[in-house]
Amino acid sequence: MNAEIIAVGSELLLGQIANTNAQFISEQLAALGVDVFFHTVCGDNEARMIDVIKNAENRADLLIFTGGLGPTKDDLTKETVARVLGRKLVTDQAAMDSIVHYFQVTGREMTENNKKQALIIDGSHVLPNRHGMAPGMIVDTKKHIYLLMPGVPSEMKPMFLDFARGWLSTHNEEHIQSRVLRFFGIGESQLETKILDLIDAQSNPTIAPLAKESEVTLRLTAKHARKDAAEAMLDQIEAKIAARVGVYLYGYDDDSLPQIVFQLMRNQKKTIAFAESLTGGMAADWLAAYPGASSVLNGGVVCYTNQVKNQVLHVPESILNTDGAVSAACAEKMASSVRILCDADLGLSFTGVAGPDKSEGKAVGTVYIGLSDQEGTQSYRFQFNGSRRKIRIQSTKTGYDLVRRHLQKLPNLNH
Amino acid sequence: MNAEIIAVGSELLLGQIANTNAQFISEQLAALGVDVFFHTVCGDNEARMIDVIKNAENRADLLIFTGGLGPTKDDLTKETVARVLGRKLVTDQAAMDSIVHYFQVTGREMTENNKKQALIIDGSHVLPNRHGMAPGMIVDTKKHIYLLMPGVPSEMKPMFLDFARGWLSTHNEEHIQSRVLRFFGIGESQLETKILDLIDAQSNPTIAPLAKESEVTLRLTAKHARKDAAEAMLDQIEAKIAARVGVYLYGYDDDSLPQIVFQLMRNQKKTIAFAESLTGGMAADWLAAYPGASSVLNGGVVCYTNQVKNQVLHVPESILNTDGAVSAACAEKMASSVRILCDADLGLSFTGVAGPDKSEGKAVGTVYIGLSDQEGTQSYRFQFNGSRRKIRIQSTKTGYDLVRRHLQKLPNLNH
Repeated sequence: MNAEIIAVGSELLLGQIANTNAQFISEQLAALGVDVFFHTVCGDNEARMIDVIKNAENRADLLIFTGGLGPTKDDLTKETVARVLGRKLVTDQAAMDSIVHYFQVTGREMTENNKKQALIIDGSHVLPNRHGMAPGMIVDTKKHIYLLMPGVPSEMKPMFLDFARGWLSTHNEEHIQSRVLRFFGIGESQLETKILDLIDAQSNPTIAPLAKESEVTLRLTAKHARKDAAEAMLDQIEAKIAARVGVYLYGYDDDSLPQIVFQLMRNQKKTIAFAESLTGGMAADWLAAYPGASSVLNGGVVCYTNQVKNQVLHVPESILNTDGAVSAACAEKMASSVRILCDADLGLSFTGVAGPDKSEGKAVGTVYIGLSDQEGTQSYRFQFNGSRRKIRIQSTKTGYDLVRRHLQKLPNLNH
Repeated sequence: MNAEIIAVGSELLLGQIANTNAQFISEQLAALGVDVFFHTVCGDNEARMIDVIKNAENRADLLIFTGGLGPTKDDLTKETVARVLGRKLVTDQAAMDSIVHYFQVTGREMTENNKKQALIIDGSHVLPNRHGMAPGMIVDTKKHIYLLMPGVPSEMKPMFLDFARGWLSTHNEEHIQSRVLRFFGIGESQLETKILDLIDAQSNPTIAPLAKESEVTLRLTAKHARKDAAEAMLDQIEAKIAARVGVYLYGYDDDSLPQIVFQLMRNQKKTIAFAESLTGGMAADWLAAYPGASSVLNGGVVCYTNQVKNQVLHVPESILNTDGAVSAACAEKMASSVRILCDADLGLSFTGVAGPDKSEGKAVGTVYIGLSDQEGTQSYRFQFNGSRRKIRIQSTKTGYDLVRRHLQKLPNLNH
């Protein structure tokens, strides 16, 4: 099966946003073994959209549309696809109920144009939208498959993952098994150097490194007629890779460091509190994102000023004046104080120089992270680099990796 | 003049990177008054590229290519364009000198395939590459213009800005001015309903609504031979829109609520502290993202448990037991306590039910936000909707909007 991804929206042609939807869907389709030969972007214009659809029908089996499902007059995607297919639009009662419910709950006024969002192409398979109003849909004419999804990424992504992916995988026959290995604490080129001979020697499974934000992933992809055989091929190559760089391997596929820490803490019935200077609430926020976070996250203190470090977290003035706020002593006191203050099993602290300017004569990227439990408190010094944003994210991820290693009773990396 | 932007590269179709080049070029072309009707992405495959070129010649005057100018065998762009045009490739001596120089300076060995990078399409205008080896080029056949640039953004962007833009602006006559109005507190369909007659009546300027995460934007676009006249057209239509929905208008173009609050606070020399339950550090983190945040952000408390609300923020047990943690009384006490605790001018608090489960018998999406200054403390009740993530983001943005209205001495919206 091969696909063309068609994004509809003038905001893309005006350069207001990048077509990240096409990237996300392409990555997902690669994992499903669907070849993507073209991406197309066109505006909210019926005649041009019809040309694009006809053109795509000549060169693709699967046409995936993002955008143009909203309530306004320039949302034309389903109307135009319906016209090309010679089908009617009909109201989907489940979608209408969900829209009416949305307005009831939010107490907002439902305007007439919202009813348009409940229209679907006759005979299509409806994909619920759990994060917005416009449903997605799949039309299978046996000659082509048309998949229509909203353009807002926070609506499209869960719709694809929860509903479209499963449908597509049952309609594609090659068994391509894919597995992503996630590494933290090692750079892309360093990782690649250590396994270069494996990468060069492999054509099935393939090994594809990719640098993500402060982490590196390896995507392993195996093809085989049988799914279990493809899985076994992945197990074998993973074992070879883990023998060399397994110390940095923290998870798989969609795992993230906060999510793994969240699960470990929940399983071990432990609680945590954060004391955050340069990360400014980011570490607590990442944990609060998970449903059920209240079982592990007691709370935290954002201590941007020395007054808060001193008054709320009891960092002595002697430390602030002598060692400074960016110091091992300060990080350790922050971690132990916040643990006690919030009555938590673990305290994790962050203090450092996020930039762009030096602070206390310490270089941008100098970061201390403190970790405290009932048995004691340690701190670790790091020297990060990059933008303010990158330094803050790298600090937060590093803190989570320290907690993960602590909970899994793994040795720390050398700092 | 209208354009199609064609990106060549399998890494785009595999979803390894997003097509940010098309976004950059589209934004630049909009400013030059060139309409972009299509973006296309295709792989490093000659037959498919020829189809794409012929297709684009039928619908665009200007064909802009990014990618496929490098030294390797799968870099095919200029070879394929030359073939479609029936032109030869010839060596450009300036480009060759520059490549030889590059290898001399870096001390690397120049391999034979690098000479391929000095080939240009016969009769083209060469665009120097100051950040890499492969030059760009423009072929003007009078029927169409073909602009070829490298795919690496750090090479393409300066080449466009320094060389291609000037060439194109002398070949195009209209000015397009664009302005984005940013709204908070009103839904997309509600906004559109209130200005539908304006949208329908306008063809120049055009008015295009777009829903962002918990906000709505309107992009106004005017065309005129003179830039100042186009700007005046935008001022005029903005005034009409503002007369109807100006109460929700908070900013322009790349503005964001936290950024506007950050600037207002810095100008007014005010400081803030956050008490965060359901937002869990998100509000503080958004402010900490800005360089210089320490001049306005004193700190905050993430109070996920009632113990932290009580012990750190002094919310009386009577409130927690009677009103509950999700209540006006709790939000107000959180806001005033954190303001005093962190010695700040303003205290902003968030408490509510992020979901997915009810809490204290209160529905998912029930949120109280408290705002405290030296003169007093108020709280506001909201009913939000959607995923846990959406509710937390909407809460944080609403809190920032309350602070903005407070600092700008605007009336609050009705809650």
